[in-house]
Amino acid sequence: MPTIDANPASGTRDLLPDDVLRRERAFATIRRTFDAHGFAPLETPAFERLEVLTGKYGEEGDQLIFKILRRGEHEASGEADLALRYDLTVPLARVAARYGSQLPTPFKRYQIAPVWRADRPGKGRFREFYQCDVDTIGSDSLTADAATLVAVTDALEALGLTGFRVQVNSRKALRGLVEAYGIAVEREGDALVALDKLDKIGLAGVTAELVERDLPPAAIAALEADLSAADPAAAVRARLERSETGVAGLAEVDQLLTLVGDAVPVTYAPVLARGLSYYTGPVFEVVHDGLDATIAAGGRYDGLIGMFQSVDVPATGGSVGLERILLLLEAAEEASAAAAGPEVLVTVMDEDGAADAVALAGRIRAAGHSVEPYSGGGRLKLAKQLRYADRRGVRVAVIRGVEERAAATVTCKALATGEQRTVPLADLESPLAAWLEA
Amino acid sequence: MPTIDANPASGTRDLLPDDVLRRERAFATIRRTFDAHGFAPLETPAFERLEVLTGKYGEEGDQLIFKILRRGEHEASGEADLALRYDLTVPLARVAARYGSQLPTPFKRYQIAPVWRADRPGKGRFREFYQCDVDTIGSDSLTADAATLVAVTDALEALGLTGFRVQVNSRKALRGLVEAYGIAVEREGDALVALDKLDKIGLAGVTAELVERDLPPAAIAALEADLSAADPAAAVRARLERSETGVAGLAEVDQLLTLVGDAVPVTYAPVLARGLSYYTGPVFEVVHDGLDATIAAGGRYDGLIGMFQSVDVPATGGSVGLERILLLLEAAEEASAAAAGPEVLVTVMDEDGAADAVALAGRIRAAGHSVEPYSGGGRLKLAKQLRYADRRGVRVAVIRGVEERAAATVTCKALATGEQRTVPLADLESPLAAWLEA
Repeated sequence: MPTIDANPASGTRDLLPDDVLRRERAFATIRRTFDAHGFAPLETPAFERLEVLTGKYGEEGDQLIFKILRRGEHEASGEADLALRYDLTVPLARVAARYGSQLPTPFKRYQIAPVWRADRPGKGRFREFYQCDVDTIGSDSLTADAATLVAVTDALEALGLTGFRVQVNSRKALRGLVEAYGIAVEREGDALVALDKLDKIGLAGVTAELVERDLPPAAIAALEADLSAADPAAAVRARLERSETGVAGLAEVDQLLTLVGDAVPVTYAPVLARGLSYYTGPVFEVVHDGLDATIAAGGRYDGLIGMFQSVDVPATGGSVGLERILLLLEAAEEASAAAAGPEVLVTVMDEDGAADAVALAGRIRAAGHSVEPYSGGGRLKLAKQLRYADRRGVRVAVIRGVEERAAATVTCKALATGEQRTVPLADLESPLAAWLEA
Repeated sequence: MPTIDANPASGTRDLLPDDVLRRERAFATIRRTFDAHGFAPLETPAFERLEVLTGKYGEEGDQLIFKILRRGEHEASGEADLALRYDLTVPLARVAARYGSQLPTPFKRYQIAPVWRADRPGKGRFREFYQCDVDTIGSDSLTADAATLVAVTDALEALGLTGFRVQVNSRKALRGLVEAYGIAVEREGDALVALDKLDKIGLAGVTAELVERDLPPAAIAALEADLSAADPAAAVRARLERSETGVAGLAEVDQLLTLVGDAVPVTYAPVLARGLSYYTGPVFEVVHDGLDATIAAGGRYDGLIGMFQSVDVPATGGSVGLERILLLLEAAEEASAAAAGPEVLVTVMDEDGAADAVALAGRIRAAGHSVEPYSGGGRLKLAKQLRYADRRGVRVAVIRGVEERAAATVTCKALATGEQRTVPLADLESPLAAWLEA
């Protein structure tokens, strides 16, 4: 019989113990931070009914949804009725509509969980990856937007990240901008898609794209002048003061800046739009200078929950770019990675000693140490067991062969130093305590 | 536009904060136990290539695998190339084959993760549910089987479960049984399927099924006599002594009983087979008397990894029936459930005080308390904010309205007692410390 390919599916990863431990440490740090900010954990299913997800992520996003075949008699039809979750925001909107009055208002939740996208897998891009979201449902107050910003940046700091800064804008200010520069409202989408790329393709790139998209030459010239000024934010601000919507948008941005105060290194980014079309108010992104990358982002989306019920519910939140950050942390931690093994290995020197080793391990565990009896097969050589112990990062090997059993003693070996002590069985705990607490 | 149904997909659940916290506590207990036993965490993707899963779970199991449609140009074909993981054992076997020499030998891993089955959802049955597995790969020693038993039962104890007992048997002893009772080897499967149901359908039911399956009347009569004896295990033992395979199987069972010693309440269960066809050696199940249910089970499966590579690798492990246990714990914990809210709420009495509240929350958090500024919208009434605080299980409300700001004071209110103290802003931490540590 031919054997089956043992690789994980394209775009997915197996996480071996050291990877899991490193990731779990980061997740625990984030959870602790969000808990400390009054957010509570929520979990939603891995899959949703297809109609819950379709039509929420734009045409391109819809193409990337993994669909699940109907089971049973309908299987042969090739139809799908379920789909894997594509992000954590749409399921949250569904939950908010479903459990509305059962939840506190505002409802503050976080979720750290995998999502799935049928993207072309590439370098550092996966089809299964974790998202880490924090949202507040049911509040139209900018205090909720500010609380998101403070929680997200506190989480980044708790992870040990430095050298990041926060850029904020408001969809209202962007609408004012379109108005102030004399762009027709129906061309807003075209203009914003191009402007949003400023960080990526630079001013020349943006200008070229605005020309290509056939926006008014006067508007393009004015934008080009303002964005190449010594202080682009000030230049755009001056322009926005001429539009009523612009003034209202700027007021929103300024109020948010006041609310977060100096807890967060935050500035106004006049053309930041954040691609997702569901944003309706403030938007933000956290950029890491050294990395030249966005490591967190979010904004207000007051219209999404209304897709699941007849009443709109205001909502705002953010998402931490977990996989990118984990790669950063991995590089920093490589040297100090904890081994995923127990502190103590009780060796098994002969078949007759195996039950003794299992019992001894139980006794050592009761003293508060992590420990296993050697449970490998084959010939019971000491050298092989010590190699295994070393491989697992074990610190003390407890050896009890025929001799030790006859003399009611036990031999303990500190693996780092090679130091070895034979003590009465009753005194076993003392060398362990001494070496493991050293 | 019609709104979209906000219920989770059939057979799945949304876990609200209190549920998540209760489950996370149990998961953490299990992880701590398995860590203490020298097992290390592994994570595998949610989906696998279809051929990894098919043909491993029997015909009925194959029908329950959720299949994922091919994406892109192949979508219209209605073909599936991926499938959601159905258990944690087959992915582990794939990992063992894929990473063989990169892993320590033996490789001891645990995994607590959801699996998906297209079962008909019913009372207490879900299409998405967590499994909790602990396995040892690469050892043919019974010490590995014993280590599984001790780890699994320690985990159950750590969860606070009592009143369970462990039944063990061996596939070798079962083969000996078939031989000793004069059943042809090719009828072994038929005989074991019926015998395995003893706990569920009783001796009369088993006898009827053996008759229906057309097994030899003499064998049925002998089995009926032995299983209705005062000590059925002793009666079957006596019969097995007459078969060479039976003797070898009993020796395996007895060695396992010796290895676990009195750490575990374990007995020999002569007709326990554990349905899954991949078991090759010892098998066990943990039954809960009060519950009349199996809460953990497992065994040795030396042939599974060989499906992914040309060489067989011995393996043994067990699975804890997490969802059933969580229901048990839920019933016990109902009263003592921790609220999923922060310790402190900083109220916002007027728009002008919002920035002050955000900053105050930061200061309280720096003192080590979990806290949020009230971030709800609408009218900023104190009564509404105190109701919200109560709902979230908040213990202290910090109030700083216009008056307090003018006087550089702050009012703290203990929600359980209603006690209220106005203190200078600089002394804010002292009533908090007093009340929150009380």
